[in-house]
This record gives sequence, structure tokens and C-alpha cells, in this order.
Amino acid sequence: MSQSAILSPSVAKMAEALIACPSVTPAAGAVFDCLEAQFAPLGFEVIRFTTGAAPDGPVENLLAVRRGPEGSRHFAFAGHVDVVPPGEGWTSAPFSPEIRGELLYGRGAVDMKGAIAAMVGAVRKIPADAGTISFVITGDEEGPARFGTLALIDKMREVDAIPDLCLVGEPTSVNRLGDVAKIGRRGSVNIFLDVEGVQGHVAYPHLADNPITRLVALLAELKAMPLDEGTDWFQASNLEVTDLTVGNPAHNVIPAKASARISIRFNDCHTGAGLADRVAEVAQRHGATARPLISGEAFLTPPGAFSDMVSAAIEDELGFRPELSTSGGTSDARFLKDLSPVIEFGLCNATMHKRDEAVALADLEALARIYRRIAQAALAR
Amino acid sequence: MSQSAILSPSVAKMAEALIACPSVTPAAGAVFDCLEAQFAPLGFEVIRFTTGAAPDGPVENLLAVRRGPEGSRHFAFAGHVDVVPPGEGWTSAPFSPEIRGELLYGRGAVDMKGAIAAMVGAVRKIPADAGTISFVITGDEEGPARFGTLALIDKMREVDAIPDLCLVGEPTSVNRLGDVAKIGRRGSVNIFLDVEGVQGHVAYPHLADNPITRLVALLAELKAMPLDEGTDWFQASNLEVTDLTVGNPAHNVIPAKASARISIRFNDCHTGAGLADRVAEVAQRHGATARPLISGEAFLTPPGAFSDMVSAAIEDELGFRPELSTSGGTSDARFLKDLSPVIEFGLCNATMHKRDEAVALADLEALARIYRRIAQAALAR
Ligand SMILES: [Zn+2]
Ligand SMILES: [Zn+2]
Repeated sequence: MSQSAILSPSVAKMAEALIACPSVTPAAGAVFDCLEAQFAPLGFEVIRFTTGAAPDGPVENLLAVRRGPEGSRHFAFAGHVDVVPPGEGWTSAPFSPEIRGELLYGRGAVDMKGAIAAMVGAVRKIPADAGTISFVITGDEEGPARFGTLALIDKMREVDAIPDLCLVGEPTSVNRLGDVAKIGRRGSVNIFLDVEGVQGHVAYPHLADNPITRLVALLAELKAMPLDEGTDWFQASNLEVTDLTVGNPAHNVIPAKASARISIRFNDCHTGAGLADRVAEVAQRHGATARPLISGEAFLTPPGAFSDMVSAAIEDELGFRPELSTSGGTSDARFLKDLSPVIEFGLCNATMHKRDEAVALADLEALARIYRRIAQAALAR
Repeated sequence: MSQSAILSPSVAKMAEALIACPSVTPAAGAVFDCLEAQFAPLGFEVIRFTTGAAPDGPVENLLAVRRGPEGSRHFAFAGHVDVVPPGEGWTSAPFSPEIRGELLYGRGAVDMKGAIAAMVGAVRKIPADAGTISFVITGDEEGPARFGTLALIDKMREVDAIPDLCLVGEPTSVNRLGDVAKIGRRGSVNIFLDVEGVQGHVAYPHLADNPITRLVALLAELKAMPLDEGTDWFQASNLEVTDLTVGNPAHNVIPAKASARISIRFNDCHTGAGLADRVAEVAQRHGATARPLISGEAFLTPPGAFSDMVSAAIEDELGFRPELSTSGGTSDARFLKDLSPVIEFGLCNATMHKRDEAVALADLEALARIYRRIAQAALAR
């Protein structure tokens, strides 16, 4: 019997079992019970805990650790069991996993219950003495994420379970499994700009101070502000104005206040705070206030030993090496990078967050084998 | 008994009677009954009619004409009996006229029931054979004004009552009665700008088309667009952005649409349509659409014979000549200027549209005498 045949039933079954537990963000309860049941027979110590209060909590999280021999390396799998709302128009019920043809359908199939099933399947084949393995699983990655992976990191520090390397199972593949892995992510900062003026009648502009005039000049200057030209591994940082608010119904009135929101996606040439300071300086010159909300800093795991392990594992299974990318939005890797080098690799993202989310059964099997290769390489001395 | 003593009781009483008829815009009924009762004994033919349908109608209007001898000159007094809502905080009830000290309080005291009373008082002292006198009184100047003075102009054409000169009784005086008369008004056009883009995720701006980027560039260009430097009689035309609308709550989303509203107050170097075309051309270059709404064209009654009559009448009564101004918002003179030269002159505007609107009793008397002098000069051959 081939290794593939051994792994495949349990990976698909495990994915089905997770999908069958509705877990629209924030996840809690059943989906964690399902996961915990898988870890116990594999020798993992499972820590489940709930953190935070409304509005961004409470959030349930799970940390599972199987410690290897004294002094062994520690490899962490990270991910989330919460999912985005299914929306309308599914062919089969989103939380009733269904195999049609070669595909398993259900919310979370690729993002990322399928990947978590593959991680568990991979670990089943790794001897307990190979090293320390942990699972860092949050119930809130798709939501505010304030009490999710951040709380898990606190817990990891508390129980002394800091990994040497970490792999996040986000669906990074684009056209086929293995074509893209992410070695970094851009950072993200939203900045709220407010301009106070003096209300008045448009016929007497000298008695008023139109805040829109200053806001438009401010936004034009910000949009023209040079950020960077990109780096070897990152595209250029980019600023977008994402909202404008005045709300003045009176045609003849100069309003008292005008506001805008900007979003900057930035590479590792910048920090969120540094950009916030630059924007605040420009805003101040236009008589505006700027309030930053940093979603995450940029990070890069420079190509090297870890990315070589990931690329080699993919090549050994699939016959080609992945593109190492830093494109796209943020993920919980923005937090985990403070603990160890982190790389993201997972299923094809074509159907993520969409109706009829689906994963190829063959990809589930292949991903489990790739994850096993990565973990074993990471644990090897 | 002096002329002043003869006029004063009836002007103040007439103003009180008009104020006592609540007539928040659009006015109808009682306030016109009150006015009509004043005209009949003076030999006027009174035409009352109602025009228009919801939402901007129906509106009641009144045209009163006393025709002089064949071939005589025709002088028109124009005004409105509707008032803006009183609002809160009045010392005495806004529609219960009350004299305290030297002031008559009530909504409409200066804008412009007091002026209409002064017009009627003036006409009482003008012999019927002096020439043709008409009153052009609308119930909707403070509202949309779509079926007010415009409908009166149609009626004037219909009954062959086109004046040679027209005086509008808006409260043009600023610090004391007689200090300012208006010989023109700027025009006004609002333009609604819409930019359609392509919605997308801020992390993938190349897959989206941010309409805010183009709107900001468009508005910056419009704000910098040279209009004019002003003329001998007009201040420079001015453009203000009065509203911005996006309404995008999602921090990570580039919105699909962005809108703005601009207001241009323009002098007689421009027409509303000409400005709308210029803005549309700029908008088109930025991929935006521009929908103009012209509130009124600019007009100027160049200083000359008519303004000399007004200035002389004021000087003869008060000892000083008025400033001839073109500042401020629009008035119904923007319509009446199509019939004849038009000048606006009336009470002090310090309390217009405010709580505790009030007129000095002495100003009512003086205004009636000034109006009488203007009308008599206008009717003289
Ligand atoms: Zn995910
Ligand atoms: Zn008025």
C-alpha cells in the first residue's frame, strides 16, 4: 500500500469532520472539540482557552504541543478554524461537506480546514522522537483577530513553546497546488484624516473656511508622496484613499468638517508608525488631524534555509518549485514572525471566501505529504 | 401734521397685520387676503393665482396693478410674503407681532413683510395719475421658487404689465437703513460630479480602479481653475466643493464610486451653462460625469439713471448715499431682470432668518418715504 493511499482517507475525512462544524468567525466549541479529538491519540498536550471580551472577543484558541527529546528542534503549524460567512447560492449546504467528482465542497475547504487536516495527517506519519511539533490554531483570523493568534503567542511564551520555524497553512497556491508560497507580507495601516473648518454660506466664502478645500489638497499631496520603488522581494508600497465623508445636504452651505480614510500597504522599507508620522506631518500642514490604525507590520523571511526546505518539499512531491511571493493582504504571519521565521503555504485560493468553496481530494493528499516533508526537514539537525 | 406722522401708523400696523399671518414658505391664504385688502381701496386690480404641483408647488402668487394714464411709465415693487421657519428661542411668539421699545418683533419683520408694508404705505401717497404701479408678490421666494416669481412673470406678460423699472424689497441694508443697495447679484450653479471606478481589495490596487484618486485630482484641478479676477462691480467668481460622498465602511476595500458637489457663484463674466461646460470638460478628462443645476444667472443693472434715483431718494431722506453692491446670495431679481432693470433695496438684514427678527419702527417710516421718492422719480417723464 502506498503512502498516499494510507494518508488519503484520513485527511479527507478529517477535513469533512471540520467542515461539518459550522464555525463562522469567531469559532468556538464543536470545531475545537473535533480538532482536540485528533490530537490526543497522537501524543499532543492540548491547551484550549478563551480570551477577550466584546466587541472583539471572547475568542477560543487551541495550542497543541508534542515535545520531542531534550534539545530537539521545534516546528510549528499555524492556522485558523474560523471561516467567513458562507453567503448565498451554494450548490450544496456550506456546512454539509460533500464530495462531487474529485472535489470536496464546503465552507473552509481551502481556507483553511483542509490545510489543517493535511497538517494533522502529516504529523501522523512523523515519529514522536523527531522533535517538538506544535499546532497554533485560532478561532479568530477572519475577524478582528485581536484575541486570536496574539493570545496564542502569549500562551506559547507562557508554556515555553517557542518554535524554531513556523508554517502557516493559508491558501497561497493560485493556479495549482504548490505554485506559490509566501515568504513575507506587506504591512497595513489605515489613517483617518479629519479637517475642521468653519461653516458658512457659499455666497460668503471669506466668512467661512472650507475644510474640503484643504482635504482635497492634502489627499492630492499624499497620493503624490513618494514611498518606495519596491525591493527585491516586495512590490512598491501603495497608498489608496478608501473613503470620503462630508454629509452636507445643503447646496448653499460650506460644511464645518470633512474626513477621509486612507489605507497604506507597505513593504519592509517602512514601519506603520513611520508612515503614520509622515502622513501626520503632511496633514498638519493642511490643518488636518491624522489618527493611524496599524493592522500589521511588514515582514520578510528572506529566502534561505527555510524557504529552501519548503521549495524542496514541493518539488519532491510535485516536480516544480514554488514562486516565493510577498503579495496580497495580511495574515496572522504578521504576528508569528515575532517568534521565528515564518512561511505561508497551502491550498489553491481560487474559491476561498466564495460560494461553493472546494478543494481537490488529490491536493489534500499531496499537501499532507508536502507538510510532512517540510516538518521533517525543519526538525532534522 | 408731518408726512412722517401720517405714514407711520399705517406702515407699522400693516407690517403687524402681515406678520400676524403665519406664512412659512410656501405662503398661501390669509397673508394674501391681508395684502389684497390693502390694495383694493388704492385702486389696484388684484390677480391672485396658484401654480404648480408637488413637490415644488402649489404656490400662491399675487399681482396687483394700478394703471396710469395711457403711455405713462410703469414702476414695479416686487417681494415675497413667505418666511423661513421661525426656529426656537424667541422672546415673544414669532407670529404675534410685538413692539418692545423702538422695535417691532416678528418673523418677516425685515424679510420682508416690513418692506411690503412700506411699499404699500409709499403708494398711498402717490396720485393714481402719476403712472402705472404694480406689486409682484410671491408666496415662494424662500423655498424652491420654481412656481413663484417665474409664474408671476408669465402672468405679467399675459396681462401686459411689464414694468420699465423694478425694485425688489429684500433687506439689503447692513449696519443702518440705506447703507447698501444691490445693483446686481452673482449667478449660482451647483454641479454634481460622479466618478465610477472598479471596486477591489486595497492589497490588489492593480485589479481595481479607485474612483477617489480621480475625484481628488479632478477637484484639485477645478479648485485651481482660473475663473476671473472680478470686475468693476463684481467680486471674483468663486468655486467651493460643498460635499463629498463615498460611504465605504470597509477599510480594505477600494470603493466603486465617489461623488462630490460643487457650488460656483459667478459674476457677469460667465453664464451658468458656460461654467457647466468648462467643468464637464475637466470632469471628462478625469473620467467623471458632471450634472449641472443652474440656480440663477448673474445680472447687473449698471450704475446709471435708476441707481441714481435710488441713491438720491436715500440721500434726500437720510443724508447719505448707499453703497451699490453686488455681493451675497441670489434673489428673485435673477428672474425679474429679464423684464426691466432691477435694483434691490430694503431694511437692515442683521436679524433676517434669525430668532427675534425685528425692525426699527423709524426704519419702517423712513423706508416708506424712500420708496415713495424712488417710485415718483421712476414714474416721472
Ligand atoms: Zn485563511
Ligand atoms: Zn427675502
